[in-house]
Amino acid sequence: MEKRRIAVVGFGHVGCGAVEALEVAPDLELAGVVLQDEGEIRRACCSLGSVPVVRHLAELEKVDAALLAVPSRCVPKLAPPILETGVATVDCYDIHGDPLMTLRATLDPIAREHGTAAVISAGWDPGTDSVVRTLLEALVPRGITYTNFGPGMSMGHTVVIKGFEGVEDALSLTIPKGCGLHKRYVYLKTRPGTDFDALVARISQDPYFAHDEVHFFPCEDVQALVDTGHAVHLERRGSAGKTHNQKVDFLMSVTNPAATGQVLVSAARAVLRQRPGAYTLPEIPPVDFLPGDRESLLHRLI
Amino acid sequence: MEKRRIAVVGFGHVGCGAVEALEVAPDLELAGVVLQDEGEIRRACCSLGSVPVVRHLAELEKVDAALLAVPSRCVPKLAPPILETGVATVDCYDIHGDPLMTLRATLDPIAREHGTAAVISAGWDPGTDSVVRTLLEALVPRGITYTNFGPGMSMGHTVVIKGFEGVEDALSLTIPKGCGLHKRYVYLKTRPGTDFDALVARISQDPYFAHDEVHFFPCEDVQALVDTGHAVHLERRGSAGKTHNQKVDFLMSVTNPAATGQVLVSAARAVLRQRPGAYTLPEIPPVDFLPGDRESLLHRLI
Repeated sequence: MEKRRIAVVGFGHVGCGAVEALEVAPDLELAGVVLQDEGEIRRACCSLGSVPVVRHLAELEKVDAALLAVPSRCVPKLAPPILETGVATVDCYDIHGDPLMTLRATLDPIAREHGTAAVISAGWDPGTDSVVRTLLEALVPRGITYTNFGPGMSMGHTVVIKGFEGVEDALSLTIPKGCGLHKRYVYLKTRPGTDFDALVARISQDPYFAHDEVHFFPCEDVQALVDTGHAVHLERRGSAGKTHNQKVDFLMSVTNPAATGQVLVSAARAVLRQRPGAYTLPEIPPVDFLPGDRESLLHRLI
Repeated sequence: MEKRRIAVVGFGHVGCGAVEALEVAPDLELAGVVLQDEGEIRRACCSLGSVPVVRHLAELEKVDAALLAVPSRCVPKLAPPILETGVATVDCYDIHGDPLMTLRATLDPIAREHGTAAVISAGWDPGTDSVVRTLLEALVPRGITYTNFGPGMSMGHTVVIKGFEGVEDALSLTIPKGCGLHKRYVYLKTRPGTDFDALVARISQDPYFAHDEVHFFPCEDVQALVDTGHAVHLERRGSAGKTHNQKVDFLMSVTNPAATGQVLVSAARAVLRQRPGAYTLPEIPPVDFLPGDRESLLHRLI
């Protein structure tokens, strides 16, 4: 069986996770890594050995799909020109609600016009958790689903804090309070001369933190606390038909970048099996995420 | 929005669960119940009020899909003539492995030829558990999945024991031993003059019990023990990419016939949204199981 060729755009935590997942995938092959930043290129060249590292996707040969392991805000600009060359895209766009649905509506006609497909928001939330939330409602149509994150490091919130003036290093943890509520713990190393309380007041007003219970802790060595483990607990109880007290729980404890990189790679397999268009994960037959032929997979998994 | 019309064939535990799920579904309508047995017909007529109870599906008006709430062994004969009239079918065929794949291979060309679809094995195992097992491998490609059932009543094993000569009443429970192994507890009320030990020896040789650890208990009032609650715990740990210790758990605690009836009804919705052919649950986009339009569902669930 010929392996399908997959490019990875970006080489941060998630890009690195995707590269590793591709290296052990039986049916996919890493075509190369696409990077713009000089520092990133040097780092990637060191760790990737003979894998091509290029500035533009077009420099790689015969790419079937590109995994966009880039910040969410870059996806809406990055995906369309790739789809226009007939190459499928998979991203892990993580801004729930309207922005996500807008991305889907934008990419869908472009993919159709060029006879290719896009899978959007292929992480674990949004992503596989979205599939689980859908399945929970198929089993228990009336009731409430709570999504409880953590405890674990929020990559996104950590990046936001690091952008504040006066912050030398930072770590933002998400801690579940139960039944879908959360608090955040923020560990902060300030630059010399920075007023800790004034900085905390500024961060507290940021839209990323303004609506949450946040606890700030001064910290001299933030890196000593870093662990990219994360967890989620989806819970739903309610009724099926006229019968109550139907209960379902989904729990996951993972190294976060490896999980997201893996979902991107599983979705790369799926994107090559879909008709032209843009898809979120609950719109894809789950068996399409796995390597191998459908009959053998079903025989084993059902 | 016009409601799609669904018939239920059979009115045992699962058929009753499916009828109740249809009665509260916002987008589906119970067209009627199809029964052959006189006793069942009388019982159904009493409890269903104005709902049509008929002997043949053809007697019901404008049926879009038929839910086959019948013993698994009846499905291969019952489904084809229904599909041949252009009516979609959904069953909860529960014999894993070859028989299930044979059913899929048998119904697929019939459904295609008549421009309709069949969803097979739409219960919780096989069924929604099959979808979860698939999703677990998309998240954690290398590792082991254990399916742990119970504690709960096995409807199938209970029926098998009741068929033995000398059995007046019986109940078979499935008890998880952990990591995918199980034991069975069988509560037996014998008919007068029956040798308990000889009966136990005969049941122990039945293919349904021969490979399991089974404990038999004499019991004077089996009905006093009956509870149709059941549970399952799917667990998988392994690696994603090159990162180990990725752990996922799915737990469910439900009233069994209500859960199976509900999955049949959610699958009725899905079968009307598939292209002609026969499908197992992991082959269906999960969003198709839910009522409403796709965009609104995705906006809410992702």
